[in-house]
Amino acid sequence: MAYSSEKLSEEKVFKDPVHRYVHVRDRLIWDLIGTKEFQRLRRIKQLGTTYLTFHGAEHSRFNHSLGVYEIVRRISDDVFRGRPEWNDENRLLSLCAALLHDLGHGPFSHSFEKVFDLDHEYFTQAIILGDTEVNKVLRRAGEDFPKKVQEVIAKTSKNKLVISLISSQIDADRMDYLQRDAYFTGVSYGHFDMERILRVMRPQEDQVVIKHSGMHAIEDYIMSRYQMYWQVYFHPVTRSAEVILTKILHRAKDLFQQKYAFKLEPTHFYSFFKGEVTVEDYVKLDESIVLYYFQMWQEEEDSILRDLCCRFMDRNLFKYAEFDPAKEYKKLAELSRLFEKVGLDPEYYLVVDSSSDLPYDFYRPGEEEERLPINLQMKNGDIRELSRESSIVEAVSGKRRTDHKLYYPVDVLRDNSTNPKIKKQIRELLEISERM
Amino acid sequence: MAYSSEKLSEEKVFKDPVHRYVHVRDRLIWDLIGTKEFQRLRRIKQLGTTYLTFHGAEHSRFNHSLGVYEIVRRISDDVFRGRPEWNDENRLLSLCAALLHDLGHGPFSHSFEKVFDLDHEYFTQAIILGDTEVNKVLRRAGEDFPKKVQEVIAKTSKNKLVISLISSQIDADRMDYLQRDAYFTGVSYGHFDMERILRVMRPQEDQVVIKHSGMHAIEDYIMSRYQMYWQVYFHPVTRSAEVILTKILHRAKDLFQQKYAFKLEPTHFYSFFKGEVTVEDYVKLDESIVLYYFQMWQEEEDSILRDLCCRFMDRNLFKYAEFDPAKEYKKLAELSRLFEKVGLDPEYYLVVDSSSDLPYDFYRPGEEEERLPINLQMKNGDIRELSRESSIVEAVSGKRRTDHKLYYPVDVLRDNSTNPKIKKQIRELLEISERM
Amino acid sequence: MAYSSEKLSEEKVFKDPVHRYVHVRDRLIWDLIGTKEFQRLRRIKQLGTTYLTFHGAEHSRFNHSLGVYEIVRRISDDVFRGRPEWNDENRLLSLCAALLHDLGHGPFSHSFEKVFDLDHEYFTQAIILGDTEVNKVLRRAGEDFPKKVQEVIAKTSKNKLVISLISSQIDADRMDYLQRDAYFTGVSYGHFDMERILRVMRPQEDQVVIKHSGMHAIEDYIMSRYQMYWQVYFHPVTRSAEVILTKILHRAKDLFQQKYAFKLEPTHFYSFFKGEVTVEDYVKLDESIVLYYFQMWQEEEDSILRDLCCRFMDRNLFKYAEFDPAKEYKKLAELSRLFEKVGLDPEYYLVVDSSSDLPYDFYRPGEEEERLPINLQMKNGDIRELSRESSIVEAVSGKRRTDHKLYYPVDVLRDNSTNPKIKKQIRELLEISERM
Amino acid sequence: MAYSSEKLSEEKVFKDPVHRYVHVRDRLIWDLIGTKEFQRLRRIKQLGTTYLTFHGAEHSRFNHSLGVYEIVRRISDDVFRGRPEWNDENRLLSLCAALLHDLGHGPFSHSFEKVFDLDHEYFTQAIILGDTEVNKVLRRAGEDFPKKVQEVIAKTSKNKLVISLISSQIDADRMDYLQRDAYFTGVSYGHFDMERILRVMRPQEDQVVIKHSGMHAIEDYIMSRYQMYWQVYFHPVTRSAEVILTKILHRAKDLFQQKYAFKLEPTHFYSFFKGEVTVEDYVKLDESIVLYYFQMWQEEEDSILRDLCCRFMDRNLFKYAEFDPAKEYKKLAELSRLFEKVGLDPEYYLVVDSSSDLPYDFYRPGEEEERLPINLQMKNGDIRELSRESSIVEAVSGKRRTDHKLYYPVDVLRDNSTNPKIKKQIRELLEISERM
Repeated sequence: MAYSSEKLSEEKVFKDPVHRYVHVRDRLIWDLIGTKEFQRLRRIKQLGTTYLTFHGAEHSRFNHSLGVYEIVRRISDDVFRGRPEWNDENRLLSLCAALLHDLGHGPFSHSFEKVFDLDHEYFTQAIILGDTEVNKVLRRAGEDFPKKVQEVIAKTSKNKLVISLISSQIDADRMDYLQRDAYFTGVSYGHFDMERILRVMRPQEDQVVIKHSGMHAIEDYIMSRYQMYWQVYFHPVTRSAEVILTKILHRAKDLFQQKYAFKLEPTHFYSFFKGEVTVEDYVKLDESIVLYYFQMWQEEEDSILRDLCCRFMDRNLFKYAEFDPAKEYKKLAELSRLFEKVGLDPEYYLVVDSSSDLPYDFYRPGEEEERLPINLQMKNGDIRELSRESSIVEAVSGKRRTDHKLYYPVDVLRDNSTNPKIKKQIRELLEISERM
Repeated sequence: MAYSSEKLSEEKVFKDPVHRYVHVRDRLIWDLIGTKEFQRLRRIKQLGTTYLTFHGAEHSRFNHSLGVYEIVRRISDDVFRGRPEWNDENRLLSLCAALLHDLGHGPFSHSFEKVFDLDHEYFTQAIILGDTEVNKVLRRAGEDFPKKVQEVIAKTSKNKLVISLISSQIDADRMDYLQRDAYFTGVSYGHFDMERILRVMRPQEDQVVIKHSGMHAIEDYIMSRYQMYWQVYFHPVTRSAEVILTKILHRAKDLFQQKYAFKLEPTHFYSFFKGEVTVEDYVKLDESIVLYYFQMWQEEEDSILRDLCCRFMDRNLFKYAEFDPAKEYKKLAELSRLFEKVGLDPEYYLVVDSSSDLPYDFYRPGEEEERLPINLQMKNGDIRELSRESSIVEAVSGKRRTDHKLYYPVDVLRDNSTNPKIKKQIRELLEISERM
Repeated sequence: MAYSSEKLSEEKVFKDPVHRYVHVRDRLIWDLIGTKEFQRLRRIKQLGTTYLTFHGAEHSRFNHSLGVYEIVRRISDDVFRGRPEWNDENRLLSLCAALLHDLGHGPFSHSFEKVFDLDHEYFTQAIILGDTEVNKVLRRAGEDFPKKVQEVIAKTSKNKLVISLISSQIDADRMDYLQRDAYFTGVSYGHFDMERILRVMRPQEDQVVIKHSGMHAIEDYIMSRYQMYWQVYFHPVTRSAEVILTKILHRAKDLFQQKYAFKLEPTHFYSFFKGEVTVEDYVKLDESIVLYYFQMWQEEEDSILRDLCCRFMDRNLFKYAEFDPAKEYKKLAELSRLFEKVGLDPEYYLVVDSSSDLPYDFYRPGEEEERLPINLQMKNGDIRELSRESSIVEAVSGKRRTDHKLYYPVDVLRDNSTNPKIKKQIRELLEISERM
Repeated sequence: MAYSSEKLSEEKVFKDPVHRYVHVRDRLIWDLIGTKEFQRLRRIKQLGTTYLTFHGAEHSRFNHSLGVYEIVRRISDDVFRGRPEWNDENRLLSLCAALLHDLGHGPFSHSFEKVFDLDHEYFTQAIILGDTEVNKVLRRAGEDFPKKVQEVIAKTSKNKLVISLISSQIDADRMDYLQRDAYFTGVSYGHFDMERILRVMRPQEDQVVIKHSGMHAIEDYIMSRYQMYWQVYFHPVTRSAEVILTKILHRAKDLFQQKYAFKLEPTHFYSFFKGEVTVEDYVKLDESIVLYYFQMWQEEEDSILRDLCCRFMDRNLFKYAEFDPAKEYKKLAELSRLFEKVGLDPEYYLVVDSSSDLPYDFYRPGEEEERLPINLQMKNGDIRELSRESSIVEAVSGKRRTDHKLYYPVDVLRDNSTNPKIKKQIRELLEISERM
């Protein structure tokens, strides 16, 4: 029998708190899960530093990747099976792409990508195509199969239907993470009737569409997404931890470039600092490696690196103030000057962080980050873009919301053993209360 | 105001998936949570290697410790408040002991304790009494307060009531972990009506008792505990990961004693290998440190250390067979001989692992591990031990169940490129099917 | 001790699937629950005919009334307690008003109110003030206490704070029914973080306000409400059952006025038919009485009454078509004419039903149905109306959505044993497919 | 196409709070649901008088019957499909038997069966075979099909496999009601991992067996059942309501036999009183009919009938005392004598009620009520009865637990306006406290 259609002698089942069970029958899927590169996702948290705000958010990307796979499996095996637009090739391609779509995530991806100018989607594709265990397994299903999976991830595949299942505004990825992140954080947002959404999905030649009768379930999903972004993903405390993490990486890179003599040489980071990261380097990195360095660097000579690492390890984060860049740039300059006076490098200790989200967008062809819209299939068969039918979705559609905050180390600013006067000035500017 | 009764200006709230919210009003509790030693619990998984069986089980001891604290807070503030047997001192003592009871857990405690002959309860007490941030915070509430908390942990305190809240067969610790571990693994065991149990708890001079009307809820809790032990905690796949982890530590210690030249010197482990662990060494260890070593040791010369580390990192675990020591010791000897013949050191590759549990026990004074029984308060005020009233509890009471398994590397034994004949013999003895 | 502050010797607890437990300590509340008029609410379904669409929706108004009470109790005892704006009188008044607010609901209220021009709020007040057990119990707490409770229900009380707790756009009534109706129907809408909303409620002199930090939870609540209205409360199948029920009442009244000789005399309905309903008559009516009549009327001579009753009892409902009154009034007239031709009285068999909802509205003083808006308390203490702060709420605010449907008996229209040609014409106009 | 294999043009879906959705594809099933006799189950509560103890327990037998159907559908379509022991005939037979198994339940069955010596299983069969809509629908699938379904209900069918799916100690009926009753009452018992149990069920020639690996899930189910019986089904308050209901029926029958002139003639009950109940009479009865009479009888001349009906309608129930028939029969006689003295007919006002349950039983051939045991399929294919493998099940197996209570009207006994001395004596014997 062809490897691509080989079944396990007995179905394997993973107990999953979100989907109850994840079912695996295909040998190809089972083998992919067993690869070194996929197992590595166990050592990378799904939500990066969010666990410092929501202590339940300690779940890994391994966890989420299985979930996305399971959703696609249900769509494929329970909803699309038997429809003329769907076939075994689509099925296998979408299952693999679902399982592997986050393979290129590194530890604390957001900060790493920002500081070292990386892109996890690039690495997902590189791992799929490179000299890896994942690639070996995929190739057993056909010499060009890795390429096919990669093209789905890259959204360059001709198979638009499979692409829209894996990455659109109502894809399996989002449906899993909203529910999973809600489950692990414990927030009451993030719930929507996924079972109903799955039931109203219909494959078309070049996309997945939603039967009109399911519009309310989709509205609910869009609102869940909106709430999760602002209540969880952009939580200001999480962003404070991100700020510190980012600044640690910055500092280490700066020190490296200044040829600073580390007590613990950052061998794992060399290629990142130099901008020459290979797939091999990349997959060696996980959160335990990063945390090992942070822990060791608590004893470095450099006071900034040391301080920031201590802050991160012991969760002694920065506090924040609302900040309006358009109106308060002068205040920022003034604060910057005062920070330097009290010996706080504003580059590291006075940080503006911005978050921005578009809850839903209709299709804007040609834009940098094209987003596949959600299309409804009306009773008469017509296709209509969601925001034209739903007044709620229309209300949030295309409206970007942005939030800026200014982060600073409140403990230092409250410590009056040095520079009490200037610190008082700073506290007044930042409206820091005198009492904890 | 005395520090011990100081309240935060605004209540702090943690979102918790199990108890919905964890509430903190006491400055003392807030400060304890902020200590280095308590934050370290974020980097230690509650269930060790269980995440390799149940992928959801990635939650930390930090998570659980807050949960135990919250249960005790509810008992104290909602159930016991106002009763003559209860007072502010009991309250603070029990809150601190609840929060800190797992402070001495290290990474993968079970294996570390076994290989290096350590005891996490000893370290919990040592951290409370030692030169630590936790100790400094506790001392603010009274010079002898750390001692008082330590005595509760050690069960030597005169305050038997607080001890029974923190460690008895129906303590806050167990009530939290059963529910929490069920939540994160996703299994449907582990549920019981905790709210009802809390409502029927009554403080007495020297113990917590349960109103008779709550007996059925307690039965349900005992059965949950039983199911969680056999379905989750003693799951044979988890034990396989434990076996490998234990053998890695063994091997590293052996190599160290043989003065093997490590590529990566195990500096963090020296004091463990020598049996001279200090509190300072101990609190430096967390899972990221351990996983860093395991990852690096995948490239060591020593083939056993290297192989075991690769197995652990990539979840290439041992398979198992049922094993009855009383009847099969001869078979084990025979297998051992054959393993040596094919070049597998039976010390590392043919491992018997045993699990054993006592779901509930009545009081057996003078025994090694005394267990406080659960006492019911009858309508007429009499106290009766649970198993005398409940036929279900009586049925499981005092009955130890033990399970033995034999672990081995099935992949090697199936690889017929070397010693095919002897391997076939081994496979027959272990009843390994020829087909995967 | 004054009756109004008398406590039960032991707290009474009701197991509630939505709030887990409902707690009663006040004797007054306990006695109210025991009254004949309150127990009657057990025999009136919370959602009228909805159980014919969602079979789980069989819960009673008794159920819901306890829930509203429990929410107010939590707000009062856990959130407002100790605040200067709150006192024991407010507490008792709001608990009683919460418990009793639906007392005047009759069986299938919506239809009864429509056909007989009644108002359940009028009867709630009449029962509170009339010669009833409820009135007797309330009077024990003070001769003018029934009046005080009635004024809260009537929204004429000077105590605006208590009114806003019981009836505003974020009152305990709505918070209970959204969750409860979602629970019993099983739909996944209707969830929001009530615990968080309760925690951010603050009493002010003349209203309850919401701390700004809770705005997202409120948004979620508004969206839940929106979804519940369109997914559950206005479900077209439920409305079909309402249509039939309303037409049964119409027909019975018409027949009565025509002095038709009922086999079963509608003694329970006389005062309704005559428009002379007393409190005494009113509280005798419950769903079992109404269903008894419907069941018996299945054997009446009058073919319309008989047919409609059979339809209702056996759930043989009308089907529906979309209908736009502005554009399709001519079609309706044409259909009406054709219905008469085939012997179907259009008055009973061709019914337009409209549903309309305003998800949220800001304050429009002087309007017929004034709605108290939701006010946020900003960080600086300012009060701002919700829709000015939340773009999502703004999007749905003040926007009435209306839906019209045309109901008809599809089974008769498909039965070609009589008038096949005209029926075919009708089917074509109504776009009824030939195949079931 | 044969009617028995006809599918609906579009799958019908019921939203169900317990199983999320109930799916119907077969026209036969759809038509059965639409019958008069099946719709009647909407007007019969699943748990009789339990709603007077647990206010959430207002769900109907309609609700439960759909649930049992859905469980069997999943077993058939998801688990058994494709296995050689299973075929379309088994499927249809088991779906119909599942859906219809409770068809013969009347209002408050338990009391009716007791007083009028009826058996709901008899009526289920009679409705299936009689001149009913259900029978008509079934006959469309084959002239002998009603007979086949009836034989499954009667357990006389040769198809032992289908029987064991519908009525054994782990049948779909029990799995549904435990979960459903837990859901609607809100108790935390009644949960077990049904999805896992379904996955380990295997059809054999003459029974369903359980794969050994699922034993723990079965243990959990047995314990849930045990807890539900004692916490919910045998709750003493529910039994108090049953006692009153039973006594109302008794009294009405007695009065009828004494030729008492009812104000409202009990026409619906005549055939019950005479012991000549036909299927036609039987299916006319539902809870609204019964409650109509009870409500009207509140105004009867006969003081006992009147009083008991008022008690039932207003939930003014009897209180209870523990009672040991073996030891306290003399006390009962004494009480009986005293009750008569104060004018309370002990036949109606001093009632012993007994509940008794066998949580699980192995097979005892030849016994009156044979119970099919649960059989495990061991790894080697052997079949072993559950209690031989599970020590927990063994502990409860075959052990009948019985509970006796004595019910009486505490309000009358506390009313000292008449016979104060004798009432005091009674109160002392019954240990009734003087204070409420």
